[in-house]
Amino acid sequence: MRSVEWTGQNRLRMIDQRRIPWDLVTVEYDDYREVAQAIFEMVVRGAPAIGVSAAFGMVLAAQQSRAANTGDLLGDLEAAAETLKQARPTAVNLAWAVDHMLVVGGGAAQNGVEGVRAALLGEAQRLADEDVATNKRMAAHGAALIRDGDTVLHHCNTGMLATVDYGTALGVIRMAHESGKRIHVLLDETRPRLQGSRLSAWECEQLGIPYDILPDTAAGHYMRRGEIDLVLFGADRVAANGDVVNKIGSYQIAVLAHENDIPCYSVFPTSTADLTMRSGDDIPIEERDKAEVLAPYGCAIVPETYCARNPAFDVTPAKYLTGLVTEQGIVRPPFDVNLAAVVRAGQGMA
Amino acid sequence: MRSVEWTGQNRLRMIDQRRIPWDLVTVEYDDYREVAQAIFEMVVRGAPAIGVSAAFGMVLAAQQSRAANTGDLLGDLEAAAETLKQARPTAVNLAWAVDHMLVVGGGAAQNGVEGVRAALLGEAQRLADEDVATNKRMAAHGAALIRDGDTVLHHCNTGMLATVDYGTALGVIRMAHESGKRIHVLLDETRPRLQGSRLSAWECEQLGIPYDILPDTAAGHYMRRGEIDLVLFGADRVAANGDVVNKIGSYQIAVLAHENDIPCYSVFPTSTADLTMRSGDDIPIEERDKAEVLAPYGCAIVPETYCARNPAFDVTPAKYLTGLVTEQGIVRPPFDVNLAAVVRAGQGMA
Repeated sequence: MRSVEWTGQNRLRMIDQRRIPWDLVTVEYDDYREVAQAIFEMVVRGAPAIGVSAAFGMVLAAQQSRAANTGDLLGDLEAAAETLKQARPTAVNLAWAVDHMLVVGGGAAQNGVEGVRAALLGEAQRLADEDVATNKRMAAHGAALIRDGDTVLHHCNTGMLATVDYGTALGVIRMAHESGKRIHVLLDETRPRLQGSRLSAWECEQLGIPYDILPDTAAGHYMRRGEIDLVLFGADRVAANGDVVNKIGSYQIAVLAHENDIPCYSVFPTSTADLTMRSGDDIPIEERDKAEVLAPYGCAIVPETYCARNPAFDVTPAKYLTGLVTEQGIVRPPFDVNLAAVVRAGQGMA
Repeated sequence: MRSVEWTGQNRLRMIDQRRIPWDLVTVEYDDYREVAQAIFEMVVRGAPAIGVSAAFGMVLAAQQSRAANTGDLLGDLEAAAETLKQARPTAVNLAWAVDHMLVVGGGAAQNGVEGVRAALLGEAQRLADEDVATNKRMAAHGAALIRDGDTVLHHCNTGMLATVDYGTALGVIRMAHESGKRIHVLLDETRPRLQGSRLSAWECEQLGIPYDILPDTAAGHYMRRGEIDLVLFGADRVAANGDVVNKIGSYQIAVLAHENDIPCYSVFPTSTADLTMRSGDDIPIEERDKAEVLAPYGCAIVPETYCARNPAFDVTPAKYLTGLVTEQGIVRPPFDVNLAAVVRAGQGMA
């Protein structure tokens, strides 16, 4: 089972991540607007997973279109692209996938309306398969960083749920575990949406990887006590200088790792790099509804009238990172030079 | 209304902090073992508040005792002292208050059983009143650190609920607010028990102090963006070298403040200093039930079988602190010299 997949009935099926760890249920969509809403509401989340979901959303948009010619169809696709891109602003994979699908659709225009539809479905399927293959290559590179007996701190969820399958940072941990290394994972619970406790702990339970959930307040405590050997997290968008925009709280643990001389890596496919962004501060940071802080999953902590801030991402300046793990290998400083090289290599592969 | 107070019916009444912000209700105890249980279950929490609660617990123990002579009464008090001290190990105020009450009881032995009882009640009342007076002196010293227009980051709860009244770090903020300075407070929600969102936000609501609750993951983000001018938190025990043991997560925000050149102060009465501890690492750190992480206030995030760690406190090494705010004034580095001086001055006052 993949977190996101195309069904034989021409529908997009995804695991409803809001129900994990309590229920493993799927939802199916045949309308691209439903897919945009599902991305916004975080039925599906994780930069690679929302990228592939949006690509399939474009397939649905092509199916839904009543256009009689490719010109009209491409117009409908452009409108759908805008709707999908607005669902979440920070992760580059979503916008990248949607724009890529527009190019693929345009390239197939000479084959007529059905030709465009077929090309889009084929490309979305290829992106989904490629994501899994990319993750396994990334995991193989990253697993070499984990030694037998290590304790690894992990933030948010970066496993099969955050991707099509296998995962990025959690994929690295999975591969080290499957290769027989005895590892222990400390999972930041990752407030406000608790992806660490709800999703990453569920994945560790499935995979038999020993773990403990930590309140986000406790990560530094264990670093200072020398109980953490390595810090891993994913990325939602990476700037040309190596600054990593990722789930809120990543910046903090990177600073704490740096202060405690613990290696800290961000793990992401080269498609998550956005070389048009000079630094992380050029990347828009989504601020979400305060209700996620005040009443997580419907459980009210305080009255809904109370005041709260809820930034979804932060910027980890490159200077706090030991390296960047990609499917092309591990990027070391100077990131402003070395990241561009692997991104070009990754694009050559794609 | 005080968070902890003695009633005319010879009972100890306290605000049930587990019910805040939803209900402002009090509970009353006439058995010191109930008081120990209330401290363990965090009906009352906050280093100064549990110190005074335990002092009144000793008054109850003296009331409960059927001893016919002071020798037997002092024996009963010693047994009660052990029970009360075991309720929570980290904050020094609890053990200090209980031991102090034993000394006071012993000192009144020549006045008979009723004399001991009267001396204990008088001393507990004096400690409660002194806590309020101490907090206001502390607040006056600390308020000078806050400028008009400042945004202050605050961790956990250090207000009237954490003390008998007025508070330590939140008392500093309150006094700055009451003096007419326009300030904005960012409240770390403080997982796992959410004292920031449940208790400090409730106090800010009562006092009309503008605030926003932050997920603990977001504090560093706002520091890096230059949106925080000052960081304040309390203390549960302070070692001779100035290391501060406080609510889990304090260490992290002190490191992040240091990294971002933001002044960071711990605010506490000199009775929270424990000069018998050479450094913070000599102080025991309580680890609490993992259920506080997995199912806060009965709201299950994940199944109860999931694994979690729950350290209640951490150590902030003195090097990350700009200063220590006490009722004797603001202590500056070198803390190993200057803290002992104000503690001696504070004990001279007591």
